[in-house]
Amino acid sequence: MKAVVLLSGGLDSTTTLAIARSEGYDVVALSFRYGQRHEVELQRAAQIAASYEVGHLICDIDLRSVGGSALTTNLDVPKHRTAAAIGEGIPITYVPARNTIFLSFALAWCEVLGASDIFIGVNAIDYSGYPDCRPEFIRAFEEVARLGTKAGVEGTRFRIHTPLISMTKAEIIAAGLRLGVDYGHTSTCYEPTSDGAACGFCDACHLRLKGFADLGLHDPVVYQASV
Amino acid sequence: MKAVVLLSGGLDSTTTLAIARSEGYDVVALSFRYGQRHEVELQRAAQIAASYEVGHLICDIDLRSVGGSALTTNLDVPKHRTAAAIGEGIPITYVPARNTIFLSFALAWCEVLGASDIFIGVNAIDYSGYPDCRPEFIRAFEEVARLGTKAGVEGTRFRIHTPLISMTKAEIIAAGLRLGVDYGHTSTCYEPTSDGAACGFCDACHLRLKGFADLGLHDPVVYQASV
Repeated sequence: MKAVVLLSGGLDSTTTLAIARSEGYDVVALSFRYGQRHEVELQRAAQIAASYEVGHLICDIDLRSVGGSALTTNLDVPKHRTAAAIGEGIPITYVPARNTIFLSFALAWCEVLGASDIFIGVNAIDYSGYPDCRPEFIRAFEEVARLGTKAGVEGTRFRIHTPLISMTKAEIIAAGLRLGVDYGHTSTCYEPTSDGAACGFCDACHLRLKGFADLGLHDPVVYQASV
Repeated sequence: MKAVVLLSGGLDSTTTLAIARSEGYDVVALSFRYGQRHEVELQRAAQIAASYEVGHLICDIDLRSVGGSALTTNLDVPKHRTAAAIGEGIPITYVPARNTIFLSFALAWCEVLGASDIFIGVNAIDYSGYPDCRPEFIRAFEEVARLGTKAGVEGTRFRIHTPLISMTKAEIIAAGLRLGVDYGHTSTCYEPTSDGAACGFCDACHLRLKGFADLGLHDPVVYQASV
């Protein structure tokens, strides 16, 4: 059974891809060049898709023209924040309606492929601040998929799988390691150097490093300095 | 009050823009370069936005890579079909999940602008075949907007306005004419010539011509031959 996996090249989406595969899905991966400030994550996504020997589509979509986020504009990405601070409120790295947009494209591709399963690595624990990572949003989008597509009208029941939604970062990493994920190829940092070294201090790096530390493990990715 | 109007440059969306203005909204227009086979409609959208002196954003999104529609691939656009045939089933000009994708971008832009109103010229009468033109889809998308955005979480109630949803083409044209819409600037044809002349025989031309004929009016756009 075919499934579309949203793959950013990060730790969460790569683990999600591995989980979808382990559940027996014939996986294809979908990434977006959406105006993010760096291409590192797309290079990593392509490497990961190739290493899993799955089809990979990179869609060009212009979110920069819409604006509104530190991830697509020149606003400063926050650094050196604690886990408690990260969990409070909606961060400026929130990209307006991003998951709605990403899921819309995944839905379109599903319909073209005759697939009904979408995997997305959203997580409601570490990023409680992102509204489009919550289960109620996911359920609402499934309803849109059912009502707004030819396949849905014809009886396809689209399912959006969120295997990570209630896992801690440590649990995600542990699950991925059990499935043989090589985290050295993933890119999580909001602001890596052009050769892919992570900053170590943005919210994404902070949560990732904490996840590995909680497991007593060393994160295999390259950081710009000792962190 | 600001509102985002989805503007394709066609008869329906232009009428929708005029209606939004007549209801007192401070309108901005959103169009997409989504891999459609011609640029005529985008040129017309830009002219229409300029004539109404409203802000206009053209977002580049790559629907062609996803495929699946006669409007974005080299499948043949059906021609010479009757109104009854057009109303039956879902035509191959259906673009998978297109309105979900368009509304997602409109939602993102709304959030950036601090707006809560979106206007879309969907119509459930002439195009009963398009699932993403039905009121139940629109309501489901409003729920996604409420649950999947920072603004929604903070209390904004997004409204998706569909003023044309239960109007016939003749009623739409009559409403637009009352508001002073110049239909000579709109482009409806699925397959116009590069200088913008309509074919006169595709489903879109057929419904448009019938709308003018029902009113006993002459369609002011240029057709390739007498139709």
